[in-house]
Amino acid sequence: MKKILNNPADYVEEMLEGFVAAHPEFYAQPERRVIARPEGATSGKVGIVSGGGSGHLPVFAGYVGPGFLDACAVGDVFASPSAEQMASAIRHADGGAGVLRLYGNYGGDVMNFDMAGEMVDMENDIRTTTVLLADDIVSAGKDEAEKRRGVAGMIYAFKIAGACADTKADLDEVTRVAQKAADACRSIGMALTPCIVPQAGKANFELGENEMEMGMGIHGEPGIWRDALRPADQIVDEMIDRILADHPFSKGDRLSVLVNSLGATPLEELYIMYRKVKQRFDDIGAEIVMPLVGRYATSMEMTGATITTIALDEELERYLKAPAACAYWRVG
Amino acid sequence: MKKILNNPADYVEEMLEGFVAAHPEFYAQPERRVIARPEGATSGKVGIVSGGGSGHLPVFAGYVGPGFLDACAVGDVFASPSAEQMASAIRHADGGAGVLRLYGNYGGDVMNFDMAGEMVDMENDIRTTTVLLADDIVSAGKDEAEKRRGVAGMIYAFKIAGACADTKADLDEVTRVAQKAADACRSIGMALTPCIVPQAGKANFELGENEMEMGMGIHGEPGIWRDALRPADQIVDEMIDRILADHPFSKGDRLSVLVNSLGATPLEELYIMYRKVKQRFDDIGAEIVMPLVGRYATSMEMTGATITTIALDEELERYLKAPAACAYWRVG
Repeated sequence: MKKILNNPADYVEEMLEGFVAAHPEFYAQPERRVIARPEGATSGKVGIVSGGGSGHLPVFAGYVGPGFLDACAVGDVFASPSAEQMASAIRHADGGAGVLRLYGNYGGDVMNFDMAGEMVDMENDIRTTTVLLADDIVSAGKDEAEKRRGVAGMIYAFKIAGACADTKADLDEVTRVAQKAADACRSIGMALTPCIVPQAGKANFELGENEMEMGMGIHGEPGIWRDALRPADQIVDEMIDRILADHPFSKGDRLSVLVNSLGATPLEELYIMYRKVKQRFDDIGAEIVMPLVGRYATSMEMTGATITTIALDEELERYLKAPAACAYWRVG
Repeated sequence: MKKILNNPADYVEEMLEGFVAAHPEFYAQPERRVIARPEGATSGKVGIVSGGGSGHLPVFAGYVGPGFLDACAVGDVFASPSAEQMASAIRHADGGAGVLRLYGNYGGDVMNFDMAGEMVDMENDIRTTTVLLADDIVSAGKDEAEKRRGVAGMIYAFKIAGACADTKADLDEVTRVAQKAADACRSIGMALTPCIVPQAGKANFELGENEMEMGMGIHGEPGIWRDALRPADQIVDEMIDRILADHPFSKGDRLSVLVNSLGATPLEELYIMYRKVKQRFDDIGAEIVMPLVGRYATSMEMTGATITTIALDEELERYLKAPAACAYWRVG
């Protein structure tokens, strides 16, 4: 296992210690495994919390910040935080106007966040709602889209929901807007090499020396096909074709696109991909607004990339462009 | 070669096409292999140019932007741009107040940038000066520091020189400040795996399955020792010890620190490293200002990290904190 770490059992704790020390203007750790804003919750504003397993930085905790999330619960690598940690994150996000739970559609996270919602309802009288990200189009068919896993699209939902909450909209309105953003996202990934969970010490899957897998999930969940590595343009064409089959775009439509590295894939290759993505939407006549190219949702040192589209109407575009800041993404 | 690309011969061209398409607010490509600000040079301001081989994004071209560089020449992967491309970059940076050439100390780059300086002097009557980054403490002894290679420290020099130029200081003053910033930087790297130059198609060096190399250069230049991978804290301790031996820090000193991934090493591991870096300077009583943790100077998908320190006085700190923006680093 070629990683720069100490005892694998201390991986998450030491990572969080460095994370908070490096960015004290954005992040505080008021309780173990809970990241919140250093200034605390904003009174009268709907709080937004997320949470999930570690190993995906900047997701999830990195998106705590003004115009984004208010707090986040942090699990072990690729494992759900506990319900107690999630309840604690909700309490730290609560400014008296209710709290939206906004996170990816994974069984353990859903179970624990539901339980956390019951806990804060009973113990703290905090009203909560839920919006699940389910943007990975490969993980289930269009007819059962509610079974899809949440991947990089969540960062658009964080941004848009955060901007809506900043207007002091009420919980129902923030929930509606977050759901609308989540519904507008489509993602697909491809992988070239696995990553290693520190406490396991070995790769979570294997790919042959010249093999790629189309549609693979961020934890190594099986994709659509596994075959010899193809040229970048061919890979991007298939990813865009699959997105368009699920959510068509037409001339005059507006969207944002995220070309995201799963970790090891360098910026150079992401730009080669984005070049083709841009050509595809230029051909359609759809306009890309605020494209994002970089590492926004990763799986540690996994090699591969995801493409996410979000269809924008006037409302979503306005919230996407509203000012926001965290250590990894600043708008305005 | 597991890379997402088309024809390796088109790697740099396609990368630049995507790079400019993704960030049109920061970058334009007025001529092949020249990145400049879309609004052109700023009249009356000293221009700052850099340049070097591709494969290090965001270095070099990514640091073109307000408060940073004005233009940049882009070579093939790990290869110097031509003198003609560098001369063109200088012309695009020229706002009538002279141009500083600010780049890393590599033979090919020095030869071509010197030639470029002569070309623009003769052909365009543009006065130029040079400041070389030579921050890699492992690449030559303290007694021949002028032979050292330039690595991640250059981003501090870009930032500080850019802020000085923004004050409309003259070329001699911008050159003095850039040299002072360059002289204040110390860097050291370590590597776990190599990267692959697309047109070569194979790794530029080999490391055993559980091996690391201390002091390795960003192109795979040999380091100090190669041995079994050590725990993160031990690695960081040795890197900091070596930096301190070259440039001591004392109680009350102020510095910035960059913990930089060479590409594949994820943020999680950088934060584990930063945690230890912070402890070391806390122990000394030196204050870290504006720490940077992330991918600021890479070698594509190389696994490993570098640590850079820059000793700050009031002047350097002021310029470091002045507003600046590019697609990868925003201040103020």
